[in-house]
Amino acid sequence: MIDASPIAERFGPRLLTRPAALAAYAQSEGHHCYPPPALAVQPESIEEVQALVRFATAQGLSVIGYGAGTSLEGNAAPVGANCLIVDFARMNRIVAVHPEDLLCVVEPGVTREQLNTDLRATGLFFPVDPGANASIGGMISTRASGTTTVHYGSVRDNVLALKVVGADGELITTGGHARKSAAGYDLTHLFTGAEGTLGLVVEASLRLHGQPEHILAATWDFGSVGGAVDTVIATIQSGVPIARMELLDEVAIRACNAQSALGLVERPTLFLEFHGSEAAVRDQLELVRAIGAGGGGGSLDFASDTDSRNRLWRARHQMLWATRAMVAGGVTWTTDVCVPISHLADAIGRAKAAIEDAGLFAPVLGHVGDGNFHVIFALHPDDTESWDKARQVNAAMVDHALSVGGTCTGEHGIGLGKREALLREHGAPAIAAMRRIKQALDPLGLFNPGKIFLDDAAIDDRQRA
Amino acid sequence: MIDASPIAERFGPRLLTRPAALAAYAQSEGHHCYPPPALAVQPESIEEVQALVRFATAQGLSVIGYGAGTSLEGNAAPVGANCLIVDFARMNRIVAVHPEDLLCVVEPGVTREQLNTDLRATGLFFPVDPGANASIGGMISTRASGTTTVHYGSVRDNVLALKVVGADGELITTGGHARKSAAGYDLTHLFTGAEGTLGLVVEASLRLHGQPEHILAATWDFGSVGGAVDTVIATIQSGVPIARMELLDEVAIRACNAQSALGLVERPTLFLEFHGSEAAVRDQLELVRAIGAGGGGGSLDFASDTDSRNRLWRARHQMLWATRAMVAGGVTWTTDVCVPISHLADAIGRAKAAIEDAGLFAPVLGHVGDGNFHVIFALHPDDTESWDKARQVNAAMVDHALSVGGTCTGEHGIGLGKREALLREHGAPAIAAMRRIKQALDPLGLFNPGKIFLDDAAIDDRQRA
Repeated sequence: MIDASPIAERFGPRLLTRPAALAAYAQSEGHHCYPPPALAVQPESIEEVQALVRFATAQGLSVIGYGAGTSLEGNAAPVGANCLIVDFARMNRIVAVHPEDLLCVVEPGVTREQLNTDLRATGLFFPVDPGANASIGGMISTRASGTTTVHYGSVRDNVLALKVVGADGELITTGGHARKSAAGYDLTHLFTGAEGTLGLVVEASLRLHGQPEHILAATWDFGSVGGAVDTVIATIQSGVPIARMELLDEVAIRACNAQSALGLVERPTLFLEFHGSEAAVRDQLELVRAIGAGGGGGSLDFASDTDSRNRLWRARHQMLWATRAMVAGGVTWTTDVCVPISHLADAIGRAKAAIEDAGLFAPVLGHVGDGNFHVIFALHPDDTESWDKARQVNAAMVDHALSVGGTCTGEHGIGLGKREALLREHGAPAIAAMRRIKQALDPLGLFNPGKIFLDDAAIDDRQRA
Repeated sequence: MIDASPIAERFGPRLLTRPAALAAYAQSEGHHCYPPPALAVQPESIEEVQALVRFATAQGLSVIGYGAGTSLEGNAAPVGANCLIVDFARMNRIVAVHPEDLLCVVEPGVTREQLNTDLRATGLFFPVDPGANASIGGMISTRASGTTTVHYGSVRDNVLALKVVGADGELITTGGHARKSAAGYDLTHLFTGAEGTLGLVVEASLRLHGQPEHILAATWDFGSVGGAVDTVIATIQSGVPIARMELLDEVAIRACNAQSALGLVERPTLFLEFHGSEAAVRDQLELVRAIGAGGGGGSLDFASDTDSRNRLWRARHQMLWATRAMVAGGVTWTTDVCVPISHLADAIGRAKAAIEDAGLFAPVLGHVGDGNFHVIFALHPDDTESWDKARQVNAAMVDHALSVGGTCTGEHGIGLGKREALLREHGAPAIAAMRRIKQALDPLGLFNPGKIFLDDAAIDDRQRA
């Protein structure tokens, strides 16, 4: 039994103990199943987060940061006993915007859509777009990327500095506001992608980019996935600075049409976006058009006004729900690998063949300009045979990605689901180095137990896959 | 006395013990003074590096990686007793080039010029250009950047994965060849910029970029440094994807003319370079020209053919020697800060005023598109009064940079010279976290003692400044 009385007065109704309220933290957009936490608290300041870390240490609780709940691999799952969720919902202030330095400072609970709405009048934007309206803290913790990463980079490339509450409750400032620095160990990028296992991100300084002078979006259907992917590969190899280059296979387009009534031809389709001066966009488009003609590209349908462009990307972003809706009573399991670009066609071809052999409903889609793609399995919760098949497809995808020098996750992180794959990807010496870092910065194992490393004491085996 | 016999047979003439040979390792392009190492060895393979780390551990030696000797802050200085230099001169093979994936794999002794000469026929290049013909291993270890970073990013942005020999002699592989990954702690970027204090980088996978379709370089003189810098600030704020944007003040131009006979007007000058399609370059140029007109820009002199462009950048890269040549018998001390771009004009103005007040000869130049600039003090070795003044100017530059959220070093690293500044820049909790990481990965303090952290046991106080 946890004694919450030391923090009850300070946090009042922001201390959540009722089962109905706590149940929300056992939910995510992923497929893992896990229990609710013992407690959840919604701090409003860095000082309150520090107080919570000290309280947790005193009570022997573990501490898990929670943002928008959009992670896919159980990255914020309260596995193990006595978890305290630190929910950043109320730390969602935009602390400062410095348009003259192309940067802003935000609290971790700010969502990317909130940030870009706030920035609109400045002529700047934060480009990282994982699809979901994730929190910035969560995006940093999972090293998120997304549709625009091919041009603007991932979160890693757009985080300048962090404030992190460490295991002693101390506040670590990892950097300043210069665009680059060679001063000491790169703590910013150590905490970025650490999934909250080394500390809690409580503030972030982010790079902003100028809204492009001209934007042109288009959809482009192909006779085969291979032709579409070959077009992507050749575009990247040619160095065209395309802003977005997304693949949706014919299964994804079918789900997309059903959900969003876009009326797209049900063929493998590239969603493209070009940013730049009018002349630069025209040059890029002509290059890509010439490349795609050789790959069997059909009609390029442009969405040049803001409304139709937004409709297009909203449809892309709703793929998860669109897929879920295709299987009555179904849930989804989204997996994610990333391969060197020259291996992409083969990797996607193998994944599609495996899905078909298994008889599963599972669209293939992704940020193919990065060599990154996802499979969204739509499954009945009780259909154990299909879950087993999905497990096999996922394992084969990871095996193939690793065999060609790729990674078991391009952007979703390790969480609960990819821990065994992480071991194989990095090998024992790298994992040993990671463990030594974890031990050095979090000797009591306070932060987000059971994630990233496979044999942590706190592992709960109840995840579905 | 060190017993080198356990490695004598294996390394033969590649084991250096004669004072004349060892003296070379007490040299760099920086201003610090330090003694030669006890031993130096030139390994030819990863296995040999592993054997050397184990030998050093057994003998109680410290281990310092050495590349091209172009560092500026004593980053590879053999301070303290019993240093073993691991000189990567013979590990200079380009292991693999994968043009289809826009990447290559190199040994740490490869220099950037060697790499780009080798890559020429592929249509690809490695963009990071710190000026000096540094080794890739050294560039990674100091988190180098340079003239093209404003567009292509620094070493940090262009390192995909590393192989690192750790303190137990184990080989750590930090990643694969996917363009992005969310798999585990970002060891790649922890070792990048760690200045060899956590292990020895023995192989690197690097991102390559397509050689631009069209390149246009130009020099552009201004009536004042302020006008030139304002042009830079407005260009960056406008989001123009300029490839290079360098400032040389009027003092630098004078030195440059004397050394390279460029015949430039002795006024503050921007060196520019635009990369892209012909239309994109034209668009960028027109934007920048319009911006600069308001800042008092004089004549834009184009160097559009390869020869004149190379002459221009060679002159820029020879600034160190050009400055040294301006003071008979002089040596140079190059310092480096980086500030948020909006503070650049003020920072440079203050530095120039301090130099003038001190009566020193010290050109100001830098990668101003990043907010990064250098001062090269030319000093007589025995003129202690001028050294004191230079120390004051440097301290004031660092103080001001930190006061506006900048960094004490944009690209040269901490080495011996910026250790006290590092403390002030990051604060005690961040430094404590760095120390815990150092202790975790190198518990015996084997690697590069005396660097980064101020109170290491092995500190030698003999550096000149």
